Amino acid sequence: MKRNQISLLALTALLAAPACADDAALREQAKGLFEVIPMQAPQLADNNAVTRDKIDLGAKLFFDPRMSKSGVFSCQSCHNVGMGGVDGLETSIGHGWQKGPRNAPTALNAVFNIAQFWDGRAPDLAAQAKGPVQAGVEMNNTADNLVATVKSMPGYVEAFAKAFPGQSDPVSFDNFALAVEAFEATLITPNSKFDQWLTGSDSAMSEDEKAGLKLFIDTGCASCHNGINIGGNGYYPFGVVEAPGAEILPAGDTGRFKVTKTASDEYVFRAGPLRNIALTAPYFHSGKVWDLKEAVSVMANSQLGAKLEDKQLDQIVAFLGTLTGEQPEVMHPILPARTTETPKPVQMN
Amino acid sequence: MKRNQISLLALTALLAAPACADDAALREQAKGLFEVIPMQAPQLADNNAVTRDKIDLGAKLFFDPRMSKSGVFSCQSCHNVGMGGVDGLETSIGHGWQKGPRNAPTALNAVFNIAQFWDGRAPDLAAQAKGPVQAGVEMNNTADNLVATVKSMPGYVEAFAKAFPGQSDPVSFDNFALAVEAFEATLITPNSKFDQWLTGSDSAMSEDEKAGLKLFIDTGCASCHNGINIGGNGYYPFGVVEAPGAEILPAGDTGRFKVTKTASDEYVFRAGPLRNIALTAPYFHSGKVWDLKEAVSVMANSQLGAKLEDKQLDQIVAFLGTLTGEQPEVMHPILPARTTETPKPVQMN
Repeated sequence: MKRNQISLLALTALLAAPACADDAALREQAKGLFEVIPMQAPQLADNNAVTRDKIDLGAKLFFDPRMSKSGVFSCQSCHNVGMGGVDGLETSIGHGWQKGPRNAPTALNAVFNIAQFWDGRAPDLAAQAKGPVQAGVEMNNTADNLVATVKSMPGYVEAFAKAFPGQSDPVSFDNFALAVEAFEATLITPNSKFDQWLTGSDSAMSEDEKAGLKLFIDTGCASCHNGINIGGNGYYPFGVVEAPGAEILPAGDTGRFKVTKTASDEYVFRAGPLRNIALTAPYFHSGKVWDLKEAVSVMANSQLGAKLEDKQLDQIVAFLGTLTGEQPEVMHPILPARTTETPKPVQMN
Repeated sequence: MKRNQISLLALTALLAAPACADDAALREQAKGLFEVIPMQAPQLADNNAVTRDKIDLGAKLFFDPRMSKSGVFSCQSCHNVGMGGVDGLETSIGHGWQKGPRNAPTALNAVFNIAQFWDGRAPDLAAQAKGPVQAGVEMNNTADNLVATVKSMPGYVEAFAKAFPGQSDPVSFDNFALAVEAFEATLITPNSKFDQWLTGSDSAMSEDEKAGLKLFIDTGCASCHNGINIGGNGYYPFGVVEAPGAEILPAGDTGRFKVTKTASDEYVFRAGPLRNIALTAPYFHSGKVWDLKEAVSVMANSQLGAKLEDKQLDQIVAFLGTLTGEQPEVMHPILPARTTETPKPVQMN
């Protein structure tokens, strides 16, 4: 009995042996395409210094529903730090129960994207933070009302003064955005199985997961989905080979064309960042596909003209599962108390 | 100069001296009426054992918007742990942007109330937790759909099995409610200035705050607002002496009458618990009063027929401010990932 067990172990070791050689070659290839998520939040251009005070203020603002006109929605409503940085809806529900036009992108690791939003219209997270707050279908607030709200609460006034020392009027819409950016930049998810493997731990990924990675590279997925976020760093037409159905790619949303007004940007979108993709269903800017396997199949067909076998799809999905990192541990902030000066929430338009 | 300072100190000491004697008498009186919030969550009847596993599961469920039909609202939406346990709205906004009938009561220290809801229709927090989840104007879910949602996610199935060991079918609506209750029972706010003073620290409250406490007792507020939550432990008619205007006390909401069908319970409500009241505007079951001073004035007039002077109102408000305790530190939970079996959110009715 014991002898049998040893033989089995030896056999397993033999079977595993070729994988080690494969690992080295595959890792070399992968290192040319992808990057590991760092353990610490990165430095931010145009937002120095990212102090603990600024991050703490940003957390308060991120979680505060009083930043919306109705008092119902905060950044956290659509970018839930406990749900992979998304809301799990096709497209977000906003002011007056309106349905937003596109699926909410994850806030996790968003700091590593080339730009923000599906069409990249915001160059950084600070610019992004100003969008949903003012969008009529989202938080429906105005910059003035947001600043008045914040200024009415001594707890916020003090926090802004600490986060932006030496400024004569620290409570401003620009500083709101910088504080939110500072907090969001901490929402990174290191130590995924993929990152552990990429940095040398052969056993961090299963054989199926490695086969999926190889397929992901060989089929061509990695030509758009690469870099630190396995996507999020370039713009590509949706439907290179064959446009998916109007359900998935609605004709009315021309993507980056709306930003650049350039004909070649019609139906062009930022390649979706695939970090934590197993947590962020539903998929695509339309949010119409709920099953990751189906999303991979749609992509293979429409972008690469590839018909993958069922097992291959499973292996790619298994690989994508290794992109789930350690989720951020966020203490829910205690928000400053309102005063009689604080603008009241308004639910009607 | 130094001599003057010493004289001033001596004078201050003299002036303060009578306050010490007063403190002892006032404290003795207060101890007969009020109780200190304990440092630890209390034991729960009918919910044994309250283990760390059960509390952690309850936190997940409390923060999970997928417990609502729309995927938009969680318990946290209306009982925000960072905003004094409320949503800061007149009445809560729920499914389809419907406006709820009454102001959301705080979840903080709610475990100490005699019963839950403004009319006390739920005997405990577990019974309470089942209400908003199924209410059409709130989360609009069904028990079956909630259980199907939870059962579709292995992360939840494991967490229920750990929280309810030895049960053959641990994922149930009853256990959902027990787990939420276990978490909510941890949301207590000890160490308020009032509690520090009540346990012997004369300097924890200012002279104005102590004067406010004395007024609170002498005017008669404490005849309804007493016990550990300074309220929340008995039922009283709103408008004992003079009914407030229909704006504050809408004619259609007959309060506890709806529960007991007893004529004498018309417009009877549970006395509002006043812990952390400075954080939980707007006030009353109608949520129509935003200013705590105005709320105190309305109460004095309608319940006690007392016309308090402006300074007296300020002192009572100052006392009420001492009821703000240490707010709960809650790590935002990481929620289990949905699967292809998870029911999709439905925003329409």
